Amino acid sequence: MTPEPKRAAPRTTASAAPTDSTAGGAGGALGAAGTGTATEGETVPTVPPGESTAEMVDVSTLLERGRELTTPVLRAAVDRLAPPMDTVAAYHFGWIDAEGNPADGDGGKAVRPALAVLSAQAAGAAPEVGVPAAVAVELVHNFSLLHDDLMDGDEQRRHRDTVWKVHGPSQAILVGDALFALGNEVLLELGTVQAGRAARRLIAATRALIDGQAQDIAFEHRERVTVEECLEMEGNKTGALLACAVSIGAVLGGADDRTADTLADFGYHLGLAFQAVDDLLGIWGDPQATGKQTWSDLRQRKKSLPVVAALAAGGPASERLGELLAADAKSSDFDSFSEEEFAIRAALIEEAGGREWTTGEARRQHTVAVRALETVDMPDRVRAELVALADFVVVRKR
Amino acid sequence: MTPEPKRAAPRTTASAAPTDSTAGGAGGALGAAGTGTATEGETVPTVPPGESTAEMVDVSTLLERGRELTTPVLRAAVDRLAPPMDTVAAYHFGWIDAEGNPADGDGGKAVRPALAVLSAQAAGAAPEVGVPAAVAVELVHNFSLLHDDLMDGDEQRRHRDTVWKVHGPSQAILVGDALFALGNEVLLELGTVQAGRAARRLIAATRALIDGQAQDIAFEHRERVTVEECLEMEGNKTGALLACAVSIGAVLGGADDRTADTLADFGYHLGLAFQAVDDLLGIWGDPQATGKQTWSDLRQRKKSLPVVAALAAGGPASERLGELLAADAKSSDFDSFSEEEFAIRAALIEEAGGREWTTGEARRQHTVAVRALETVDMPDRVRAELVALADFVVVRKR
Repeated sequence: MTPEPKRAAPRTTASAAPTDSTAGGAGGALGAAGTGTATEGETVPTVPPGESTAEMVDVSTLLERGRELTTPVLRAAVDRLAPPMDTVAAYHFGWIDAEGNPADGDGGKAVRPALAVLSAQAAGAAPEVGVPAAVAVELVHNFSLLHDDLMDGDEQRRHRDTVWKVHGPSQAILVGDALFALGNEVLLELGTVQAGRAARRLIAATRALIDGQAQDIAFEHRERVTVEECLEMEGNKTGALLACAVSIGAVLGGADDRTADTLADFGYHLGLAFQAVDDLLGIWGDPQATGKQTWSDLRQRKKSLPVVAALAAGGPASERLGELLAADAKSSDFDSFSEEEFAIRAALIEEAGGREWTTGEARRQHTVAVRALETVDMPDRVRAELVALADFVVVRKR
Repeated sequence: MTPEPKRAAPRTTASAAPTDSTAGGAGGALGAAGTGTATEGETVPTVPPGESTAEMVDVSTLLERGRELTTPVLRAAVDRLAPPMDTVAAYHFGWIDAEGNPADGDGGKAVRPALAVLSAQAAGAAPEVGVPAAVAVELVHNFSLLHDDLMDGDEQRRHRDTVWKVHGPSQAILVGDALFALGNEVLLELGTVQAGRAARRLIAATRALIDGQAQDIAFEHRERVTVEECLEMEGNKTGALLACAVSIGAVLGGADDRTADTLADFGYHLGLAFQAVDDLLGIWGDPQATGKQTWSDLRQRKKSLPVVAALAAGGPASERLGELLAADAKSSDFDSFSEEEFAIRAALIEEAGGREWTTGEARRQHTVAVRALETVDMPDRVRAELVALADFVVVRKR
């Protein structure tokens, strides 16, 4: 079997070995913030915005604009699905409730649409040019949520029952397939050469997404996963589609491949930063904010970055953690574990340096991402907005 | 919700109402063959080849050539999947057994690859030009098999356990997704304008495929389905992808949209003919040839063409059948029904005219398909080969 390149864009390496990074570097301010415990009411790790113009940008306005431009086109696309798939998809997106009544659901953070719209502007085009890219990426992202929730047996998403819980596994498979197809159709029906180039990048990102889910499932059955394997998986699951979002808007706006590749590089590392923060929130996040249970990822035995970094660090806490997790894997009592038993594991992860390393990793990936942007020629305002979004991704609480 | 056109190509109407068609027309020779019962060792309905040059074409050579050109490229594409998806896909295609040992499996009839290769030749291009089209269509077709088998709970395909039975539901979902993505990638990575046009047709056909599966699932829960609804569903599930196969090879070969649409029209009606024969085989097929149980579709309560035509025909047998099927839907003993109970239902379908009508429908769709071909300018040899394939589709026993 010949392995093939799995990502949409080349990238540089941001990750240091866990032990290197917990030991050294400019983690001062970040490290201090990083020791807060969200479940105790404090904030999650933050990255201080630099001296850039990003401070002048209101991120919520940016996200809102992306949402406002994208949602009507997204809804019109979903309305094209044959019944009952249109209804099931509308439930998934939070536009209606399980009984079919209109709802004002939580449609997610909408980082991808904002990136796609800015991507078009980075190429000097109007924001509207990026809308088909935003819609396509949202459709593919939600295809993967529908299928992953079913494969992972996740019963809740965005504070609501998942589609397979409400409408059954067949509808989750079928509507996922339909959203996947629709995402590609939205691009291809533009009928231009640029649309073909964008579609090619989208399909490569989708393949990476699927590879990442395959790795995620495989890792569940393994006792040990290396930090490198975890980063590769997270690059596939999260980095590839953010890379696509922030590059195919530009492609639709006429950008050449080199520019698109560099923007993709920004998005890929931003995705890794995003995922590192997600992994921190998955253990120490505030359930009120995340909509998930306390110690959510530990309950699901996820081999997320803090866990694999802690296991790789060595030392007494790391070894004790390894023993506990190995015993947990065989335990029949796991499902009835108390809060305290998860808290013990979380404390060991922290003691072994897994939390601090992951916090540092979010910062490192953020830095690499922002540095990639510097090599692309674009309006200052657009650059500042992209940096502001990158900052937002690593300071969010949900 | 705004409905959208669900098919890849315009088409003419071949179907008469069941009662009209069983009464009239040139069904003589066909009707006679159609009364044979495959399970009693006789042949399934046949369509006599016309006076065309099709008689001089060896269909098995045509199918073999399509398979030989396509299989190495298909295997190379599947090899690009990350483990364990490559292995699961190889099992599905019959290249390895459940233990991972090389197998010489039944890869299906390979009608689609043969059509895609001929499609390129219809546009005056070399057969090889159609190979990416053939591979793309095979990948998308097999994506739908993987997902449909899981949704329908089908445990056997091509005389072997289905993927979800052997590798679990998650792998069936995931590898299905991967084949879907790969099919689009194979076309888009050609990077030409023609490839973009072909990809757009492929994604439209895939959307139709998904619509058809949605209809198929919805019909299972309904007491009555009209003949028109059944034909629309079968057009989506079978017609759209055959239409795609026989048109996108030509698109890659430089054909204009009008030519591609007409070839798609041929493929769409050929698909409906194919499905009518499949529906006959699903009730009266020889289990040895089909690899399915006796009365397979009746055991699965499928509302296939012979059933809906029989129910629509009226008269004593039709009414008795309706009563029996309505009672079956509520029966808790259905799973332990004897051969004889299914034989009674099959006899009623036949007595009500459902078998004869479906046989006639296969012939009518075949005629419309072949007539569409006459309006496309292409080498005589290629036309004869397409007609020979069309004839094969309606005389097959599996």
